[in-house]
Amino acid sequence: MKTPGLTNVRMEGGLLGQKNDLVREKVIPYQWRALNDDIADAEPSYAIKNFKIAAGEMEGDFGGMVFQDSDVAKWLEAVAYQLATHPDETLKKTADSVIDIIEKAQDDNGYLNTRFTIKDRDKRWTNLAECHELYCAGHMLEAAVAYFEATGERKLLDVMIRFVDHIGSIFGPGEGRKKGYPGHQEIELALMRLYKITGEKKHLDLARYFIDERGTQPHYFDLEYEARGKTDFWPDFYKGGKEYHQSHLPVREQKTAVGHSVRAVYMYTAMADIAARTGDESLKEACRTLWKNTTEKQMYVTAGIGSSGFQEAFTFDYDMPADRAYTETCASIGLVFWASRMLNMEKDGRYADVMERALYNGVMSGMNQDGDRFFYVNPLEVWPDACEKRKDHDHVKPIRQKWYGCACCPPNIARLFASIGEYIYSVTDQDLYVHLYNSSSVSWKGLSLKQKTEYPWNGRISMTIGGNTDTESSIYLRIPGWCQSWTVMVNGEEIKGSPEKGYLCLTGSWKEGDTIEADFAMPVERVYAHPRMRDASGKTALQRGPVVYCLEEADNGKDLPALLLAEDGIAESFEKNTLKGVVVLKAKGLREEAPADDSLYSGSRPVRSEQDLTFVPYYAWNNRKEGEMLVWIREI
Amino acid sequence: MKTPGLTNVRMEGGLLGQKNDLVREKVIPYQWRALNDDIADAEPSYAIKNFKIAAGEMEGDFGGMVFQDSDVAKWLEAVAYQLATHPDETLKKTADSVIDIIEKAQDDNGYLNTRFTIKDRDKRWTNLAECHELYCAGHMLEAAVAYFEATGERKLLDVMIRFVDHIGSIFGPGEGRKKGYPGHQEIELALMRLYKITGEKKHLDLARYFIDERGTQPHYFDLEYEARGKTDFWPDFYKGGKEYHQSHLPVREQKTAVGHSVRAVYMYTAMADIAARTGDESLKEACRTLWKNTTEKQMYVTAGIGSSGFQEAFTFDYDMPADRAYTETCASIGLVFWASRMLNMEKDGRYADVMERALYNGVMSGMNQDGDRFFYVNPLEVWPDACEKRKDHDHVKPIRQKWYGCACCPPNIARLFASIGEYIYSVTDQDLYVHLYNSSSVSWKGLSLKQKTEYPWNGRISMTIGGNTDTESSIYLRIPGWCQSWTVMVNGEEIKGSPEKGYLCLTGSWKEGDTIEADFAMPVERVYAHPRMRDASGKTALQRGPVVYCLEEADNGKDLPALLLAEDGIAESFEKNTLKGVVVLKAKGLREEAPADDSLYSGSRPVRSEQDLTFVPYYAWNNRKEGEMLVWIREI
Repeated sequence: MKTPGLTNVRMEGGLLGQKNDLVREKVIPYQWRALNDDIADAEPSYAIKNFKIAAGEMEGDFGGMVFQDSDVAKWLEAVAYQLATHPDETLKKTADSVIDIIEKAQDDNGYLNTRFTIKDRDKRWTNLAECHELYCAGHMLEAAVAYFEATGERKLLDVMIRFVDHIGSIFGPGEGRKKGYPGHQEIELALMRLYKITGEKKHLDLARYFIDERGTQPHYFDLEYEARGKTDFWPDFYKGGKEYHQSHLPVREQKTAVGHSVRAVYMYTAMADIAARTGDESLKEACRTLWKNTTEKQMYVTAGIGSSGFQEAFTFDYDMPADRAYTETCASIGLVFWASRMLNMEKDGRYADVMERALYNGVMSGMNQDGDRFFYVNPLEVWPDACEKRKDHDHVKPIRQKWYGCACCPPNIARLFASIGEYIYSVTDQDLYVHLYNSSSVSWKGLSLKQKTEYPWNGRISMTIGGNTDTESSIYLRIPGWCQSWTVMVNGEEIKGSPEKGYLCLTGSWKEGDTIEADFAMPVERVYAHPRMRDASGKTALQRGPVVYCLEEADNGKDLPALLLAEDGIAESFEKNTLKGVVVLKAKGLREEAPADDSLYSGSRPVRSEQDLTFVPYYAWNNRKEGEMLVWIREI
Repeated sequence: MKTPGLTNVRMEGGLLGQKNDLVREKVIPYQWRALNDDIADAEPSYAIKNFKIAAGEMEGDFGGMVFQDSDVAKWLEAVAYQLATHPDETLKKTADSVIDIIEKAQDDNGYLNTRFTIKDRDKRWTNLAECHELYCAGHMLEAAVAYFEATGERKLLDVMIRFVDHIGSIFGPGEGRKKGYPGHQEIELALMRLYKITGEKKHLDLARYFIDERGTQPHYFDLEYEARGKTDFWPDFYKGGKEYHQSHLPVREQKTAVGHSVRAVYMYTAMADIAARTGDESLKEACRTLWKNTTEKQMYVTAGIGSSGFQEAFTFDYDMPADRAYTETCASIGLVFWASRMLNMEKDGRYADVMERALYNGVMSGMNQDGDRFFYVNPLEVWPDACEKRKDHDHVKPIRQKWYGCACCPPNIARLFASIGEYIYSVTDQDLYVHLYNSSSVSWKGLSLKQKTEYPWNGRISMTIGGNTDTESSIYLRIPGWCQSWTVMVNGEEIKGSPEKGYLCLTGSWKEGDTIEADFAMPVERVYAHPRMRDASGKTALQRGPVVYCLEEADNGKDLPALLLAEDGIAESFEKNTLKGVVVLKAKGLREEAPADDSLYSGSRPVRSEQDLTFVPYYAWNNRKEGEMLVWIREI
């Protein structure tokens, strides 16, 4: 299985299309201003300036984080995806001008990184654990591949191939080369993308080397630490433990998701990529084990991952506090990447289920509906007072921010939604897989499929075939894991088959005008967590289709945990003017009232009064005003 | 109202008597070893060594915290209380030898503090905000007063009066004196104790000065910070904010309890002391306002205070997470001090209710039943995995420790239980107040009262009068706030009166052999928290009499939050051999089971199976083995 390629997919509205449009119309221009430090009252980026300085076009010192280059790379990658589907000469000119600067910032030997070009040139490659040189290289390589695929132009790709050659001359199995690998994984998956277009074994080999070498003994990060005189770039980073960057063990020996969650899922993505391309069974098995632990023991119902603000990390099985979740936007994005690679590795609808859950919840919550405010952290319960006054909520912002000093998330959302078409379909030599439902069309092997739907607001999807084929080919429709009841009709005739691994196979010699109609029953579901997940004990979360709901203060008043949900039915209605058009849920409920004497403790249960409850999609919270939010609610 | 004096109270067994015995028999000898760095595998104290070095009896450098002297002071104070009730020549000799060293460690000008005698003599009094010189002075002054009251010997008292004179020459309203006050309040309440025995107005005035000057502008801590060249003793302490040490406002303008909770209650204690002695109405009102906020908005059901590990501090109203509570043992001890002073200020059973709640719960939990392991932090829910793996649980230890580098709590418990007799009764010129119930006897005005009871295990108390009086006097019995139904009989005849402000007044010309019998119905109560206290939403805590109960893994298995309490009656039985004799509660309950497929999220509520639940007193938890603990439990 592989993606059909962005130029073969057209988004045609719908919620995912809205986000795709938003990225093109608002986010990319907004982020261009951010990268140029042109947003009032926002933390400056310095990112473009750094490249100009490194290119010799400006004087000045490096600004921002050691990984600041990656923000430019992710923005360029997002631009590339948009250019693939929506050519835009002005935007392309801007991008080309950035690429020109990047090229000028590259050293003769191929090295490219503004931080260690503007200063500390002698410290290049001395601190892989902390300094993100390979991470930045990976992001720029992704941008280069995307830009080449979108425009056919090689300038950035050639820059990056030179850099990859340089990296390959420094690191690898050969004598005289360092046995290193990145402190923040990313280049591995980028090299696999490069390999996809070059087919050059050395690109696969380097990716594989970084994955296979990781966590072996003697430990590279110990060796480089000794070699550079035991200095830290970040305070006490070295003491932070090797779990943080998943180098505590060789990857095949890792059984649970640990450490920094974005690093983790970027690495797992590359592992799945390599396993799929090489057929490496031990690596496949490692991917499956880590997937199971991540998604069945450590994943929030929003597909957020990372329960700890400290180290932005996984903690341990079933530890998922709603209010102190880290659940970084980037981590859910990485989970989408990983899920899509797992699907490429082996057909299993559970991967697509998680991918869908992440997209409609933990990813989408990261950006506001105007495309200019961003959450880095996506908790499932917000009490603004606690965010302000409790140190253990330091990482939780009660409102989306204009930008971040560490701005990994905003351009990451941009590149994901800019390329969202890639995640809807997969193709094999013969067949088409439909993983996600959203109005769109796809072309493959001389055929096309046009999907029309109001998904996720209802589960009815009409598909029409374009083109003709004489040979049989299969269209695999994903039957969503959340769906208990469905029908699929081909040319008006109901299909009686059962899905296999989550996909219903429709085989035929497709002809122009053939129709496929799917109807996935989408009632409101009450979700219950495993009893060991103590934070959700005695509570339920509402989900409808793939969309998880929440209560907001804007609709329900303060003190949301004092509310209880009644057993009665829940009314749903699509409200066109609410939050850019969402299905709103209304339910009967109760509110626990303060005792008459307002006493802190009392011998009687709080008196309950009736209150109607309004639930809105979790992803859309905090688009009206600041206030409390709650996903898990008690039941009467 | 004032205390009858320790020599006039005799403890005669019972739970409080047990703790008093334990302090004498185990804790004082154990802590003497600790202060002498003689406990294997425990953090060293250095405290005695510091005094020897300062006294010129040893060579060496200062060790431990800047406030290490206070541990010696608190130990000496505990010893004094024991000597008052249980003369012991060997113990006294040890104490006298320490006092000799303390005297030798004093400077000619009266200054006494080993940290700034051994080193940084030039920095004396340059950093009141951080360096605890006045705090240590306060503790040693309390020890001196107690030692004088217990033994009649003045050596330590004279040392400390010289030091107080020195302090009075440095600080105060007069010209040329510094307008300072302590960064950690303590000396104010100690000066009030000194004033009680000296009657010297200058001692009252100095206490009052420290209270009245606090938080005025220009702010003293700013001035001294500037004056010493903007250096911090603790990293970034100055930036930590003035709420931390309650100097953000003049004390009479403070409306809510903020900042470091031990500092807060020590200050409030002094405020109540001063208000009671001077009749200062504005100070009384400030005390009432702060009391109301502390106990009605920010106090855990165990009478623990301080919801935040960061800064060991109060946070904001209704913010009381069970698992991340700080609820320092010392803070609950300070709450006992404050409550007893509020009682002295004005009769109100609510003060005694909180005092009792603290003693039987948040204080008593701080020490194990063998007197050699201590909790600093007393949460209401413990998940050992989280303590080990979650940074926001860094402050929570799942088992009591042998000692602490910052060992304020262990000797604080020792001095409180050594003087527990002081808290049971108060006297006025005429009358006796019985605040707490425990087998004991008290003498006042030629009369005695002997109390026999198994309290807190049942609510039956028999009191017998000794001696005769011709004039009428009143005995005020506290009707506990937790008690819904009670009878009191005098010489077999039921009293029909109503309590006033929580006390039932029994007036008579008491004769030898008169009896008072009280029976406080003590059923198991289910306590419910205010609905704004979100952490306890939908849950109940069991309380019987003043004792709050908990579930332990030792009795109920793991995953305690998966348990629910049934509505049925709860069986109680006194179990002599459990936890040194406690009433154990047994109840029907249910356990939520993992789903058959162990899935993290499911569309069905967890299946529930019957499980009998066992509750033990919260204070006695973690005396068997390490494991989970839970106070707030869901109900079916």
